[in-house]
Amino acid sequence: MNKLIKDGDRVLLYGEDGTKFLVRVEAGKKKGTHLGVVEFDTIIGKNYGDVITIGKTNKSYYLLQPTYIDDIFSMKRKTQIIYPKDSSYIVMKLDIKPGSRVIDTGVGSGAMCAAMARLVGSEGKVYAYERREDFYKLATQNLTEWGLIDRVELKLRDIAFGFDETNVDALLLDVPDPENYIQVCWEALAGGGRIGVICPTVNQVSMVLEKMYELPFIDVEVWETLMRQFKPYPNRLRPVDRMVAHTTYMIFARKVNSFVKIK
Amino acid sequence: MNKLIKDGDRVLLYGEDGTKFLVRVEAGKKKGTHLGVVEFDTIIGKNYGDVITIGKTNKSYYLLQPTYIDDIFSMKRKTQIIYPKDSSYIVMKLDIKPGSRVIDTGVGSGAMCAAMARLVGSEGKVYAYERREDFYKLATQNLTEWGLIDRVELKLRDIAFGFDETNVDALLLDVPDPENYIQVCWEALAGGGRIGVICPTVNQVSMVLEKMYELPFIDVEVWETLMRQFKPYPNRLRPVDRMVAHTTYMIFARKVNSFVKIK
Amino acid sequence: MNKLIKDGDRVLLYGEDGTKFLVRVEAGKKKGTHLGVVEFDTIIGKNYGDVITIGKTNKSYYLLQPTYIDDIFSMKRKTQIIYPKDSSYIVMKLDIKPGSRVIDTGVGSGAMCAAMARLVGSEGKVYAYERREDFYKLATQNLTEWGLIDRVELKLRDIAFGFDETNVDALLLDVPDPENYIQVCWEALAGGGRIGVICPTVNQVSMVLEKMYELPFIDVEVWETLMRQFKPYPNRLRPVDRMVAHTTYMIFARKVNSFVKIK
Amino acid sequence: MNKLIKDGDRVLLYGEDGTKFLVRVEAGKKKGTHLGVVEFDTIIGKNYGDVITIGKTNKSYYLLQPTYIDDIFSMKRKTQIIYPKDSSYIVMKLDIKPGSRVIDTGVGSGAMCAAMARLVGSEGKVYAYERREDFYKLATQNLTEWGLIDRVELKLRDIAFGFDETNVDALLLDVPDPENYIQVCWEALAGGGRIGVICPTVNQVSMVLEKMYELPFIDVEVWETLMRQFKPYPNRLRPVDRMVAHTTYMIFARKVNSFVKIK
Repeated sequence: MNKLIKDGDRVLLYGEDGTKFLVRVEAGKKKGTHLGVVEFDTIIGKNYGDVITIGKTNKSYYLLQPTYIDDIFSMKRKTQIIYPKDSSYIVMKLDIKPGSRVIDTGVGSGAMCAAMARLVGSEGKVYAYERREDFYKLATQNLTEWGLIDRVELKLRDIAFGFDETNVDALLLDVPDPENYIQVCWEALAGGGRIGVICPTVNQVSMVLEKMYELPFIDVEVWETLMRQFKPYPNRLRPVDRMVAHTTYMIFARKVNSFVKIK
Repeated sequence: MNKLIKDGDRVLLYGEDGTKFLVRVEAGKKKGTHLGVVEFDTIIGKNYGDVITIGKTNKSYYLLQPTYIDDIFSMKRKTQIIYPKDSSYIVMKLDIKPGSRVIDTGVGSGAMCAAMARLVGSEGKVYAYERREDFYKLATQNLTEWGLIDRVELKLRDIAFGFDETNVDALLLDVPDPENYIQVCWEALAGGGRIGVICPTVNQVSMVLEKMYELPFIDVEVWETLMRQFKPYPNRLRPVDRMVAHTTYMIFARKVNSFVKIK
Repeated sequence: MNKLIKDGDRVLLYGEDGTKFLVRVEAGKKKGTHLGVVEFDTIIGKNYGDVITIGKTNKSYYLLQPTYIDDIFSMKRKTQIIYPKDSSYIVMKLDIKPGSRVIDTGVGSGAMCAAMARLVGSEGKVYAYERREDFYKLATQNLTEWGLIDRVELKLRDIAFGFDETNVDALLLDVPDPENYIQVCWEALAGGGRIGVICPTVNQVSMVLEKMYELPFIDVEVWETLMRQFKPYPNRLRPVDRMVAHTTYMIFARKVNSFVKIK
Repeated sequence: MNKLIKDGDRVLLYGEDGTKFLVRVEAGKKKGTHLGVVEFDTIIGKNYGDVITIGKTNKSYYLLQPTYIDDIFSMKRKTQIIYPKDSSYIVMKLDIKPGSRVIDTGVGSGAMCAAMARLVGSEGKVYAYERREDFYKLATQNLTEWGLIDRVELKLRDIAFGFDETNVDALLLDVPDPENYIQVCWEALAGGGRIGVICPTVNQVSMVLEKMYELPFIDVEVWETLMRQFKPYPNRLRPVDRMVAHTTYMIFARKVNSFVKIK
């Protein structure tokens, strides 16, 4: 909805040259950019979608609401993040929606945790496990900045001894040695619950699959995504020159309570 | 959460051979399948994740909660649907989440409408425009079946004369001649609102881009997605033999209220 | 060059509906097709590029020289073949050209052997090893049909005990357990000679790489190819709906005579 | 074959760090590199596949025969080249082999011309048309360096008025406005002759297809290639992070002498 920009809002400055800066607007403050200085007082009271022109340089910035994708590409991060091409598919395969109770581990900088938290809404919950204190602090900071911290129960904890929760709807496992945690994931999931596992290498995929086949998991799938962007010129339309070739393989499966027979 | 299956629940029967049937369980009724007859009375009271064995044939079915992807691949449809590889990315790029107010047009069988409705939650709303009565009825039926109809305002209407709503957060345009509706889409969007356009052919991409550049849209991007599945054998891991090569190109952009200068 | 079709020529019949039949034209004989019967006497004396119309049905066939790709997709085969998308890259990476001396093993139906033999010319030679007699006979038959048998020395032989040749320019290894033959391949290659290995699964890739790193091979590369075809409609241009997702991974490397130090 | 390196040979220096330098070895001369100075006298008389160690730095270089791919990635160039992923498929689709008579235009730096010339052998011929004098000179220089100039008839000429040759087996059209030359290409080809057209943008593809359908061409295909390389680590096997997303679309067709009816 068209709303006025208020003191304290997070705003995406979209420059006339396509550059983006995500800022928190505070009365009396400003942001220096390569196109010139943006005085926040000139932004407050504007509508989203408006454009401002910077005094001396006559350069302009459009004022936009940040999206999830803007958030994660602007955040402070210390880790490799899961790209939108993958995270979008993960939340759909895990069927995350308002009200879902889900586990995310490891949390890293919090990008995937946020992808889940924004969808579970105020009725749902993300239980997030991270064993490194620096990541735990960073994720806390990022999730707070994004206004999602209330939906997340963030724990500084190694998952070797399992999760506190049971009967969760879905779980994402993104750790360096996922093959070691398939059992504890199975225990935390509800019957019919969905698991996703992040595996950058094919060797990890093989190891995780072997572990999964020892437990009552069904509907096991392995996927990878290639997304290709185009140069948006109507009369010279063509893909860009280079693209992301690989981020990760993704394994998905569903927990059942027991096997009748091993498939 | 682990819950008992009740009379009236929608249940995914996942056969021991990997086949799937999505049924609504009704006391006293049954479903005939190639593995044998499933008596619904034997399902009611079971937990999700449990397995049943069919009397005479000794074949088994696992009992699962249907996900969005299960829903759309089991639904009655008269139209080509937007695949999960694309719909998952679309809802993320359009930043749809609990509380969003969005437009979907045309509705077709209702698959994309459902992808949005399940995310906007009870506080949000999907305004859905479809001009063909048979599709309108089918989408109504499907969205009712999925329990999402309350979040959707479905209209049997041609969009040539525009939309009733203004200031919507996002809009998806999926019609045979999208280039003719870019202006009315702009009018319906809030400042900073996000548009997605479905274009199966490159010619449509060019035509839509030309129209977009006549209006205050920024951050114009064109994408396509390739998803590849693997045969999940740990010791003979490899991609499947064949895959979907193309479904559609996707154009994304953001409305601004006016241009300072044409880029 | 424009040449007349002679008795005994191999001709590709390209039907008006896009179907293809590869025939050897023999005076007085004929070929029955779904479009009608093609009398070879009506073909002999025509130019390549001409079209014939079949008497009763009024259907037409264009008369073309068969290419390598036509040959392999029309041949009798008992094995999975290496697709043009891969074989074309292989012969370039192995730098096969007129005069090259190369090894091909296993031969299978002879498709890859032909890809090499057609390029090495009359001055070069392909040494081809196949251990199964049925494949050996089939490959002999196919290579004879294609007029390439004089350039190939085809041997019914297991490669466990190595190759007869040394100092070959290049070698293609396409067997079910390539990891067991890397040493004998190294021995057959000239210094600087190029090896290609066909590995349908990632597990094979890993095993072959491990073996390669035990020997003086450098410039080790692993590749896969995705080729996508388009529906050739100028005004509705778009990729086809489905495509080949995977055939094989390809490993390439170069033999050196010794290592200075292990990389 | 294992051969001694002689004065005047072209040698690929493959550094212990994977860097490559392609040099012409001349007695008494040397090449300075980041790993140290390579004295050519220490190379002459060595075998291909041998390794040399540079005196002071103790760094090493392997001595290899340059392949076609080495040649084009080391050459002087003023133009975008056709990548191996595409050129390898082109020469196979055009069925170029010893003895072929083919046309290449525009020549640019000569990379594609060389891909053809190395395959047509001493019995075949490449007729190469280039209208820019600087490219003509550069291509002449490169083809001479590669020892292929005798197989190429290189002409400084605009193709607007057609080609001197007729009845050529195949033709590659790689110019900025290919849609303007389809007629003259048809005239130069033999009946059944094969054409390939390079089209970086989808708009060019559409325009060329429209022109082709006005003339007797059949078997019209449009392709694109994606090649993906892997990091060759056996225990952490995965694709590289980034890849080439697009170089060009490729159109292929075959000339027939006349249509019976327009398809």
